[in-house]
Amino acid sequence: MDGSKKHTLSIFKAGIEAVEPRTLIKRMVKYSDNLLTVRDHDYDLSRFKKVIVAGGGKASTLMARGIEEILQNRITDGLVITSYGSSTATQRVRIVEAGHPVPDENGVKGAAEMLEMLEASGEDTLVICVISGGASALLTAPHKTINVKHLQVLTHELLACGASIKEINTVRKHLSRIKGGNLAKAANPATVVTLILSDVVGNPLDVIASGPTVPDPTTYSNAMEVLGKYGLLKKTPISVIEHLEKGASGEIPETPKPGDPLFSKVKNFIIGSNRAALKGAEKKAEELGYNTLLLSSSIEGETRDAAMFHASIVKEIIENNDPVAKPACLLSGGETTVTIHGTGKGGRNQEFVLALAIELDGAENVSILSGGTDGIDGPTDAAGALADGGTCQKALTLGLEPHQYFDNNDSYSFFKALDDLIITGPTNTNVMDLRIILVGSKLTG
Amino acid sequence: MDGSKKHTLSIFKAGIEAVEPRTLIKRMVKYSDNLLTVRDHDYDLSRFKKVIVAGGGKASTLMARGIEEILQNRITDGLVITSYGSSTATQRVRIVEAGHPVPDENGVKGAAEMLEMLEASGEDTLVICVISGGASALLTAPHKTINVKHLQVLTHELLACGASIKEINTVRKHLSRIKGGNLAKAANPATVVTLILSDVVGNPLDVIASGPTVPDPTTYSNAMEVLGKYGLLKKTPISVIEHLEKGASGEIPETPKPGDPLFSKVKNFIIGSNRAALKGAEKKAEELGYNTLLLSSSIEGETRDAAMFHASIVKEIIENNDPVAKPACLLSGGETTVTIHGTGKGGRNQEFVLALAIELDGAENVSILSGGTDGIDGPTDAAGALADGGTCQKALTLGLEPHQYFDNNDSYSFFKALDDLIITGPTNTNVMDLRIILVGSKLTG
Repeated sequence: MDGSKKHTLSIFKAGIEAVEPRTLIKRMVKYSDNLLTVRDHDYDLSRFKKVIVAGGGKASTLMARGIEEILQNRITDGLVITSYGSSTATQRVRIVEAGHPVPDENGVKGAAEMLEMLEASGEDTLVICVISGGASALLTAPHKTINVKHLQVLTHELLACGASIKEINTVRKHLSRIKGGNLAKAANPATVVTLILSDVVGNPLDVIASGPTVPDPTTYSNAMEVLGKYGLLKKTPISVIEHLEKGASGEIPETPKPGDPLFSKVKNFIIGSNRAALKGAEKKAEELGYNTLLLSSSIEGETRDAAMFHASIVKEIIENNDPVAKPACLLSGGETTVTIHGTGKGGRNQEFVLALAIELDGAENVSILSGGTDGIDGPTDAAGALADGGTCQKALTLGLEPHQYFDNNDSYSFFKALDDLIITGPTNTNVMDLRIILVGSKLTG
Repeated sequence: MDGSKKHTLSIFKAGIEAVEPRTLIKRMVKYSDNLLTVRDHDYDLSRFKKVIVAGGGKASTLMARGIEEILQNRITDGLVITSYGSSTATQRVRIVEAGHPVPDENGVKGAAEMLEMLEASGEDTLVICVISGGASALLTAPHKTINVKHLQVLTHELLACGASIKEINTVRKHLSRIKGGNLAKAANPATVVTLILSDVVGNPLDVIASGPTVPDPTTYSNAMEVLGKYGLLKKTPISVIEHLEKGASGEIPETPKPGDPLFSKVKNFIIGSNRAALKGAEKKAEELGYNTLLLSSSIEGETRDAAMFHASIVKEIIENNDPVAKPACLLSGGETTVTIHGTGKGGRNQEFVLALAIELDGAENVSILSGGTDGIDGPTDAAGALADGGTCQKALTLGLEPHQYFDNNDSYSFFKALDDLIITGPTNTNVMDLRIILVGSKLTG
């Protein structure tokens, strides 16, 4: 691997290290003399008999470990649900591994167990809730009359119908005993502190993991309206419809609403986000001698379009040293989407890198990396990929036609053949993606 | 109009002033003691008996005037073709106004007259060619056996078939007696100096105005291949097919190719481009006290995607003072496209501003402008539009639903009702679009 690629990779790794869950927890949470301080909020632990840890997500076991290392034997019980292969050893907090992104029976069983633990809370209970990306699928606790298979069918229909994430969550929150503030309700009258590692652009509390400890302004009637709007009423399984109808008629209680007094005992804290990873990457790039430009932590949209926009900025840097002078490190974050046209294998990060490699074919001293901070890009074992201005030429000498792989959404096979995949394995953190583009060498004088 | 909008508008105007064609010509072209200097190339005018001016485009009359003011009575003849309403008074160079973007008979007549003038050139002739945006349509000189109406039919088919601009130009160059180096060929054995105001991203000489004085690497056979690739061979009018077949079989000569000795007497100079306008705008923004960030002069792609990309940067500025600290002026250039889904009236600049106004609804101290430097945005009488974070709210109080206008591609009606259109009339220059976004007030302390 040449020096520029090494730089790119070490900047990526620095970005991921900056959002290591235990590091983030320990920056935000302090404990001494029975006083627990979370950012600027104090909790007197002498008031609490029980201190329990709950939550879920790909980073939740490391978050739980961070809390364990701070509170040690003050923790009385705990349970977090993570995805298969993402667990790490804990002392007091039980770990359940479950299916992601498709919920499975393990998740359902684990969530039921968690709710049981929370419902045993009293005034003298402090619940520390740890939430990270993936928790929406992992914390699956459908209302008891809803068939889990029915829930899977509906989820599939909702994802395919063109509904917005806000609309999808409106339905989800009204089918779950955890989402839409229901976790906080289950824990009531306990005091709840929620620590959130955000994997959503803009860090909206009610969207991340469908807001288990956040008031829900939407109603059962709204959920029915969403199904009607997308013509799904007839396709929706009967156990779901019956539940929503009962809710809409007031037979069963609503999700807890803004202003509900139970939230006076609940606080939500974002402990880390994509920007924290970008700042970590930026710091490393500065140490390596690059002029940095942190473009945005919220790049969304179609991956190829995002790649074209980055290319237009890179070209300006190459030709005119704007918006940042060479040697430059352009950084961006967020999470794009891929509309699949082909039959190949890939992920949004690998496709981004291939699109840029094609657009910047022949450019000198340009190095490109895009990777998922969770170590997983699409349905592949890679976190992302690396490329430079010589990538397409090198591919052609190996008999790989870059456009063909691009048109077939087959970026994984392309970079595998070039040995330019980034394989990290699960990183046990998750703050969306990092894109790093170096322009101009820092290596040859 | 509030102060921020005034700032935005004055920055836009400074950008346009920076690409005033006479100013650009006078910066690049000097004349004294019979020595004409164009950038770093000298021409001894005592060697030339005739000095003629030819060319076309929306800025061509002002470019011709700039040359006239420099060379005065050394100019012996001249003719440039501009669009209706874009002409300005000249002393020695004749002006023909013609149809744009659809070529018309005036253009055909004018181009024939220009070729006649050029073909009378000798070794002792210096041709100063002035080329700017719009020249492709304005300099319409089909080969004599090609019916003009047939050419219009084919142009329409080519624009609709999904062919790239490079493919379209491959066909165009082989139907024209001006494009693809043919103007230089007509002027041979004259010395040719071409001054180009670029309206194309990346300033590629062979693409701007289809390169009338630039070698053409493409062939008649390539042109036939393009028609075949897009299934147009049967739809192509007979006079066009016959001409291309004659060319492919060698019956009529090819366009002049790279290495053709005639080009040893030809020099092409870019006198101005989108970046020059951006730099002019940036200077003004700095004078007004903003921290500037010149993002790129080559933003292309779908307008709404470009708007989302800009929005993600603006949000980062608002929240985190990255990639530039408030009070900030974010500048970009290039030219986007609009895929029309609705039945309204608008242009890429107005649609960009509406998309951003929706995305940044409620943001404080944000002012947005996008405008065409030629003063014309799409099929409207506006150059572009202005908005701020209060635009959507103001629209709603007037009974205008922003999303409805956006979905109907009706940005013109929206901004007309709000009195936020920018009306400049034709500016007689053309270097694509300018986008200016101010974040953070410079007006209240």
